[in-house]
Amino acid sequence: MTPTSQAHAQPVLIVGSMAFDDLELPSENAKDVVGGAATYAAYAASLFAPVRIVAVVGRDFPDSELNELTRRGVDVTGVERKEGKTFRWAGRYAQNLQSRTTLDTQLNVFADFKPRLPEAFRDSPYLLLGNIQPALQLEVLEQARAPKLVAADTMNFWISGERATLGRVLSRVDLLVINDEEARQLAEEHNIKRAAQAILKLGPKRVIIKRGEFGAMLFDEHGIFFAPAYPLENEIDPTGAGDTFAGALMGHLASQHAIDGGTLRRALMTATAVASFCVEGVGTRRTRSLSRADVAGRLEELRSLVHFTS
Amino acid sequence: MTPTSQAHAQPVLIVGSMAFDDLELPSENAKDVVGGAATYAAYAASLFAPVRIVAVVGRDFPDSELNELTRRGVDVTGVERKEGKTFRWAGRYAQNLQSRTTLDTQLNVFADFKPRLPEAFRDSPYLLLGNIQPALQLEVLEQARAPKLVAADTMNFWISGERATLGRVLSRVDLLVINDEEARQLAEEHNIKRAAQAILKLGPKRVIIKRGEFGAMLFDEHGIFFAPAYPLENEIDPTGAGDTFAGALMGHLASQHAIDGGTLRRALMTATAVASFCVEGVGTRRTRSLSRADVAGRLEELRSLVHFTS
Repeated sequence: MTPTSQAHAQPVLIVGSMAFDDLELPSENAKDVVGGAATYAAYAASLFAPVRIVAVVGRDFPDSELNELTRRGVDVTGVERKEGKTFRWAGRYAQNLQSRTTLDTQLNVFADFKPRLPEAFRDSPYLLLGNIQPALQLEVLEQARAPKLVAADTMNFWISGERATLGRVLSRVDLLVINDEEARQLAEEHNIKRAAQAILKLGPKRVIIKRGEFGAMLFDEHGIFFAPAYPLENEIDPTGAGDTFAGALMGHLASQHAIDGGTLRRALMTATAVASFCVEGVGTRRTRSLSRADVAGRLEELRSLVHFTS
Repeated sequence: MTPTSQAHAQPVLIVGSMAFDDLELPSENAKDVVGGAATYAAYAASLFAPVRIVAVVGRDFPDSELNELTRRGVDVTGVERKEGKTFRWAGRYAQNLQSRTTLDTQLNVFADFKPRLPEAFRDSPYLLLGNIQPALQLEVLEQARAPKLVAADTMNFWISGERATLGRVLSRVDLLVINDEEARQLAEEHNIKRAAQAILKLGPKRVIIKRGEFGAMLFDEHGIFFAPAYPLENEIDPTGAGDTFAGALMGHLASQHAIDGGTLRRALMTATAVASFCVEGVGTRRTRSLSRADVAGRLEELRSLVHFTS
């Protein structure tokens, strides 16, 4: 990405985890892979817009990584470096990559994460609340000033354990981006269309339900839009694909100065394209190598995938 | 359907089971539901083209059902009525309709099914080989004279137990229509794109992989086409949806006098639309009530579901 491609885009503020992952993949064992939702989302969003991160890392987090993000137009002044170690997750994927087992989770400095938005970040028009404790998502919302679009992620743990607080978050969110199991759990409804309708009643004006290799669906006042997943031949590492999707989505929207239905549909397709690349490499490796032309090419393939004439 | 809507369509020959199903559904228990792959496929195909069935039923199969099929332009002279009882299947669906358990299978007269094509059926240009023993599928092919398009279904039982014979069928089939688990088993490959490529090497020029609520994919020389499933709000009974899909697909193709890439894509969308209706009622109930306008309306909804502009 050249800085010029982001010249007219508005900034995206991303709040979430930065981490080290130890990944047992079918193709290789990869240790100390730089990950975390905010990292994945930031690399993806930076393809389209200037990005700001609020996160916490330990002494062991490499300066080189923060420098690389900076080089890509990511403002890392909101990344707090604390005494101690960075959040670490270890997991093993099934041979077909359809499921994974957590082998180890060490929250480390992430256990006491208190998101603090630098003054210069408070007016960020696009705000992505990564999957953190709902109470912390609320604290971010308290610090933000009139964001144009607030998107949020969450997870099963908060849906079952922090439903009331999560409800307060949802009432202030424009766009919820979650996977299908989370949607079903949140709505207490298996049917995905009825689940989406129930979620919209909780506050968000729009909900995007991610279904992995089966695509993603947008439910908004215009109805339903379906973005098919790109049929990958060589899946390497699905870690962070959902965060990459959310980051690309917000980055694309921030580059368009619009959040109407048509723009959202294009954003969803763009997010699908970028997330498909993420799975083709370990960690953020493939996403980092992307050019806008790569994304445009895959977008064309996605268009052809669903194109038919009457 | 009025006869005129089929006036220019070519005939579709369907070979497969006709049965009684006892269904334990979340919404109701339904006994003696007329089903079977050939029945579902015939009702669907008859929306678009004249249909011919080759099947076997027992003394207990109602004349009224054969008369109803006849009224819809289905030639049932190839339905052999034998001493004994009709094939019967009983199953229980999970509350979310995502899985089902077979409670009972009684092959009855279907155990000795020997498909015999009446002379007038042998020149049928469109031939759908339902999920029967591969050796019987071969016998049908021996009796058919230069069909324009042969489509086939199969199942796990034949893939594991009759692989060699199934291979001979596949080498003579233009279009294989199977679900994703069958595709993976047949190709011995989890990745769906690589599985499809492996299947194309076994003979079929095209393969359609059905993924239930996640849509269907066509793999042919033009690449990949993805038809999203219609997001249903009230799923009642998924029984026969796959057969309805295959029947509608063949019926649409037979009505178009063409099997080029564009026609196949439209056929896939049409089949998706008709199959979605099937799930909205018990057995063939909803499919029987369909008008062409219903199908066209749902097709428009499917188009809008994946429509975006660049």
